[in-house]
Amino acid sequence: MHQGVKCSICGEKAVAIIRYARLRLCKRHFLEFVERKVERAIRRYGLVGRGDRVVVAVSGGKDSSTLASILAKLSGKLGYKLYLLYIDLGIPVYSKANREKVVELSKTIGKPLIVVDVKEVLGLTVPELAFKVRRPVCSVCGVVKRYIMNAVAVELKASALAMGHNLDDLVAYVLKEFFNQNLEQISKLGPRTGSVEGLAVGRIRPLYEVYERESLLYVLLSRTPFLPDECPHVRRGTMEFKIKELLDSLEESFPGIKFGLMRRLAKNLESYPKPSQKLSRCKACGLIASGELCSFCKITKQALGEPMGARVREYIRRKILELGLD
Amino acid sequence: MHQGVKCSICGEKAVAIIRYARLRLCKRHFLEFVERKVERAIRRYGLVGRGDRVVVAVSGGKDSSTLASILAKLSGKLGYKLYLLYIDLGIPVYSKANREKVVELSKTIGKPLIVVDVKEVLGLTVPELAFKVRRPVCSVCGVVKRYIMNAVAVELKASALAMGHNLDDLVAYVLKEFFNQNLEQISKLGPRTGSVEGLAVGRIRPLYEVYERESLLYVLLSRTPFLPDECPHVRRGTMEFKIKELLDSLEESFPGIKFGLMRRLAKNLESYPKPSQKLSRCKACGLIASGELCSFCKITKQALGEPMGARVREYIRRKILELGLD
Repeated sequence: MHQGVKCSICGEKAVAIIRYARLRLCKRHFLEFVERKVERAIRRYGLVGRGDRVVVAVSGGKDSSTLASILAKLSGKLGYKLYLLYIDLGIPVYSKANREKVVELSKTIGKPLIVVDVKEVLGLTVPELAFKVRRPVCSVCGVVKRYIMNAVAVELKASALAMGHNLDDLVAYVLKEFFNQNLEQISKLGPRTGSVEGLAVGRIRPLYEVYERESLLYVLLSRTPFLPDECPHVRRGTMEFKIKELLDSLEESFPGIKFGLMRRLAKNLESYPKPSQKLSRCKACGLIASGELCSFCKITKQALGEPMGARVREYIRRKILELGLD
Repeated sequence: MHQGVKCSICGEKAVAIIRYARLRLCKRHFLEFVERKVERAIRRYGLVGRGDRVVVAVSGGKDSSTLASILAKLSGKLGYKLYLLYIDLGIPVYSKANREKVVELSKTIGKPLIVVDVKEVLGLTVPELAFKVRRPVCSVCGVVKRYIMNAVAVELKASALAMGHNLDDLVAYVLKEFFNQNLEQISKLGPRTGSVEGLAVGRIRPLYEVYERESLLYVLLSRTPFLPDECPHVRRGTMEFKIKELLDSLEESFPGIKFGLMRRLAKNLESYPKPSQKLSRCKACGLIASGELCSFCKITKQALGEPMGARVREYIRRKILELGLD
């Protein structure tokens, strides 16, 4: 930041230049700017209603910490109940450090936290599970996280599961799916996806219009607890990673281009073909599946001899009772 | 090219490395490789049939010269008649130089050439016309070229108008339209578009799977006449230009990614929403329009006091008669 750059609103020392909006903002007005964006996205896209229960999946990283912090601030005004969910995947060092941060976050923002410890309930960490079924860690991790997030939201009778995907992440996913011409996947990358009564809780993405750098600056300036570390399993050099780099370069030349794409996409989602996949109820655990068993019950059956969805659901019910959240 | 790199097919000195296909090719096998690609695209996408008349729009540039040259070579085997069309837009120096190249090209490949000279028929060059109607040259040029190409194809009762769009151009158009979420425009960027009986002749893109650098190397190695100059009105720094640069960088990291996208897109075109625009017949000239008058008749009426489509069609008919092409 150059010396002497002043906030466009109050004239105080600016800490952020928002090129696409032609704004320079001081700390206070920057925080308000991001909070307003989230509130506007919630209203514009009808993400949350009065009396709703919302589960926010937190990882300890900047995006979900920004999200949890802002959703907590808005919860009184917009009249919903907020619950934090942390999934301890058992990734050495990384998972414990993030767990501590999330406990701190929960205290700071004053919202209850449910911790699901994968090793505790399955007897195996996610990397161990992946090793047993001979599949990439990130792919197994995705299945486990999706299952637990949904199961917790279902048990809490939540109306929505809030995800910390920021604008840059979403644009990169969308482009990657476009290169693969998976238009049906793109149809799921809007600000919200639908619920299936009793089987699956819809996802909402309140950071849909928040850039990654805004999210980072938000946690830093608001002193929201977070860990800047990346998961040790993250792979660089993937297509998605390269696409993200190139999109940053495009944004540099044409500020606001990512934002414009996602705004137009949100308006245009009806034009995309919807997945035609038949949905059913998992025979083992009773949650959503595309065949006999859900992916989680399939993987755990393969690794441990029996599908573990039902046990995980029981564990979650107990946790919720213990915390007095029901 | 490194000393001593050998053709994957015959072991002669290689002149081209085709990374996405893991091939190194000598001059002869490179030319065959590009010609086969075009032939395969024609068959795969059903672009041309036996007994058809095909008009190829040539500009004097590398792509349309490559296209005209290969379409001429394949015309005997695939049994269609080929006509070259050059539109002299009256752009100082540039148009004359290209016109000379195209005359040379027509002689070299032994196919008849129709030249439509905009100044001759309208009394104004395209830049003069744009100045009169106070619109950007490139936008007016697009209207004029589209009109004349279609009018010539209609008069010749052609089944298709062949365009020199290469793979890189097409990927950039597609991405640009994707950023604007114009899915309907994307639906028109496949290997062919439909004809409307008597009103409009469909376009085909036989270079749909040919990279820009392959097209350039083809004209160079085959000694096909072309001019490497760019139109003086081309603007750099546009979004399309930047997108093209970024796509090149992506292709560098993931060879074949552009090709993969366009292959998948061609298979997926049915999933895209179609333009719902009502089509009608221009009251002034009788060709395709979206309202009372076609865009060409509108622009010429604005500039010259009367719609000029009918006069252009008469001029084209005369040219065709003079050349004995009917």
